[in-house]
Amino acid sequence: MWSIIILIFLSIVSYLLTDELIPKIKNLFINAGLFGIDLCKVSKEKIPEAIGVVSGCVFLVTIFMFIPIVFGNDLMDRGNFPHNEFAELLAALLSICCMLLLGFADDVLNLKWRYKLLLPTVASLPLLVVYYVNFNSTTFIVPIPLRHFFGNSVNIGFLYYIYMGMLAVFCTNAINILAGINGLEVGQSAIIAMSIIIFDIIELRGDQFKAHSFSLHIMIPYLATTLALLKHNWYPSKVFVGDTFCYVSGMTFAVVAILSHFSKTVLLFFLPQIINFVYSVPQLFHIIPCPRHRLPKYSAETDLLYPSKTVILKKDMNMLHKYILQVLTLFRLVDKQEDDGCIVINNMTLINLFLIKLGPMSEVRLTSSLLVFQILCTCIAFIVRYPMASYFY
Amino acid sequence: MWSIIILIFLSIVSYLLTDELIPKIKNLFINAGLFGIDLCKVSKEKIPEAIGVVSGCVFLVTIFMFIPIVFGNDLMDRGNFPHNEFAELLAALLSICCMLLLGFADDVLNLKWRYKLLLPTVASLPLLVVYYVNFNSTTFIVPIPLRHFFGNSVNIGFLYYIYMGMLAVFCTNAINILAGINGLEVGQSAIIAMSIIIFDIIELRGDQFKAHSFSLHIMIPYLATTLALLKHNWYPSKVFVGDTFCYVSGMTFAVVAILSHFSKTVLLFFLPQIINFVYSVPQLFHIIPCPRHRLPKYSAETDLLYPSKTVILKKDMNMLHKYILQVLTLFRLVDKQEDDGCIVINNMTLINLFLIKLGPMSEVRLTSSLLVFQILCTCIAFIVRYPMASYFY
Repeated sequence: MWSIIILIFLSIVSYLLTDELIPKIKNLFINAGLFGIDLCKVSKEKIPEAIGVVSGCVFLVTIFMFIPIVFGNDLMDRGNFPHNEFAELLAALLSICCMLLLGFADDVLNLKWRYKLLLPTVASLPLLVVYYVNFNSTTFIVPIPLRHFFGNSVNIGFLYYIYMGMLAVFCTNAINILAGINGLEVGQSAIIAMSIIIFDIIELRGDQFKAHSFSLHIMIPYLATTLALLKHNWYPSKVFVGDTFCYVSGMTFAVVAILSHFSKTVLLFFLPQIINFVYSVPQLFHIIPCPRHRLPKYSAETDLLYPSKTVILKKDMNMLHKYILQVLTLFRLVDKQEDDGCIVINNMTLINLFLIKLGPMSEVRLTSSLLVFQILCTCIAFIVRYPMASYFY
Repeated sequence: MWSIIILIFLSIVSYLLTDELIPKIKNLFINAGLFGIDLCKVSKEKIPEAIGVVSGCVFLVTIFMFIPIVFGNDLMDRGNFPHNEFAELLAALLSICCMLLLGFADDVLNLKWRYKLLLPTVASLPLLVVYYVNFNSTTFIVPIPLRHFFGNSVNIGFLYYIYMGMLAVFCTNAINILAGINGLEVGQSAIIAMSIIIFDIIELRGDQFKAHSFSLHIMIPYLATTLALLKHNWYPSKVFVGDTFCYVSGMTFAVVAILSHFSKTVLLFFLPQIINFVYSVPQLFHIIPCPRHRLPKYSAETDLLYPSKTVILKKDMNMLHKYILQVLTLFRLVDKQEDDGCIVINNMTLINLFLIKLGPMSEVRLTSSLLVFQILCTCIAFIVRYPMASYFY
């Protein structure tokens, strides 16, 4: 209990520190050539990029400082020191630190896609070893209606580790592709973090309280540094967060999901990201042409954002294209215009879908709408997790 | 035993991978503005900087891959899993990964000095907690001649942790200041690594074999990736290694020194770095004027290097200056010329001292001489460690 109060205090300090550090350090980034131009603004000012590395470093240092406190009582009694819990925390920090490094390297060097997929997998290796040693529970509990076919639980063995490795890759990339307008990456991460914290607090009285207090130890400083970053990244952004932030956030959520054993609940909190990912699949796998940027089109005259478009040449169309377009049209998920020799559709992102359904709007309203949707999904997640799950489990 | 063979095999793979990756990835660095001009060459070609991040990443990934192998037998028998040894390895990797991140951030952003001193200290925190939990031996054994005064051993308690924290700061910065000519940083680190490996092999039959096999697990992949880097960094350098490499190397040595309990022996292997540090102190603390670069002066005509100079104005001279110059002159450690109103002395680095004592020489010969000196110091270290230490302990 005391340790949580100290953690909250440390986290407030880390919020203030991040908030103080960002404006001070921002010119270093511009001087190093780490800057971008905001495509949805009239001004062509240089905005520092990859500032997520600042909040990430403060986040890591905060947990480092917290190590002697959380293990304080145990340190007195060395014979019974919980080496396994300590190893868990170290593995978590190692995976996050690796992603911080990879994310920053990516922002600086613009790495190729294969590294982006390979390295989170490698970075999650220590995590998986810790999981194997400390738990090695590779069993899914089967929902009641399906128990007739599969029995009470299914042990998927080695596949479970593949699932966890893929979870790390998914979380790191899912946030990265629901991005592009001021404050969205950081806003959604903050809401997911808050959702996890609420879930932890509810479960703190249950029999998994150790796992949930572990999760709190990581999520509280994460939330504090993320909120400080959000302050500077909110519309109009004075800093960009870069891949660094998305990678660190994704890995942090994956770490907590894996080591605190609630990966399915975390995936529920990722509902908007999952929707965006599934919706993006045809473009991500280049079945439908994918321009370099898919973010909305900004009109300086109206100061509003409009859905951006991609073009499919009719001569390139095959059965798969037709089938995908049919399904999307059926569910009214696409804005399709036929032109001479080609079909123009919107870029398939959740952001553009919002603009189609709700009409053109200002950047700040668009971000807010998407964040309200994220909060709504959290509510749905809690309904699924609590009243509904009790019917099925 | 098997695990060491697999480790050597993995390390050969990591050598080949690093060797292959560096030329491929080098343009990414130049495009990102991470390049320098070699000041000791006629050609003003752009040479990629901070390539140490490549060898550092391969080094980390190699150890990640090795985790399931080294703990393979123990993984079968989960009840007796050596959580403490596992936590040790994780803490080591975490500290190294932090330094990799800090070094790379420093190369990209040019951080201020205070961060350079602060962050290695923070990065060594997990290491110190592991040390506290697993050993907490804060006792120095007193040499026999002094036992009359201090007793057989002295427990310095908390000071020992300060000593270890400072060791990390010292190791990371000591390599960084004995640098500037092609291949020197990497060459010296490779020799120190080999010295530690030889020491480990000698001690492998002693009662500390666990600590020494831990040290081998870290040093062998480190040496492999460092040798691959040396191949590209040797005269004439096709890549520069950056602060990244110096920081990672320093932290790697500090980690091994602390967790395998032979910090004094490691310091013996650092003899040239210690000499260089002590010799540099008057300039590092700005008692004597310190120009931005202290590396030797290159003459395009002769293709030789000459000692570089610094100027002390006679009107700025005080007692301290006079005293330092007197001592240095007494031991013939300075090349002093009196000029009109000022005194010109060589920049106080081991590199310049070699040029003064051995005369101007080519860059490759200078690096080789310094590396021969490093090897010589290793021999002295082994003499101190073995025949001499047995008299005193």
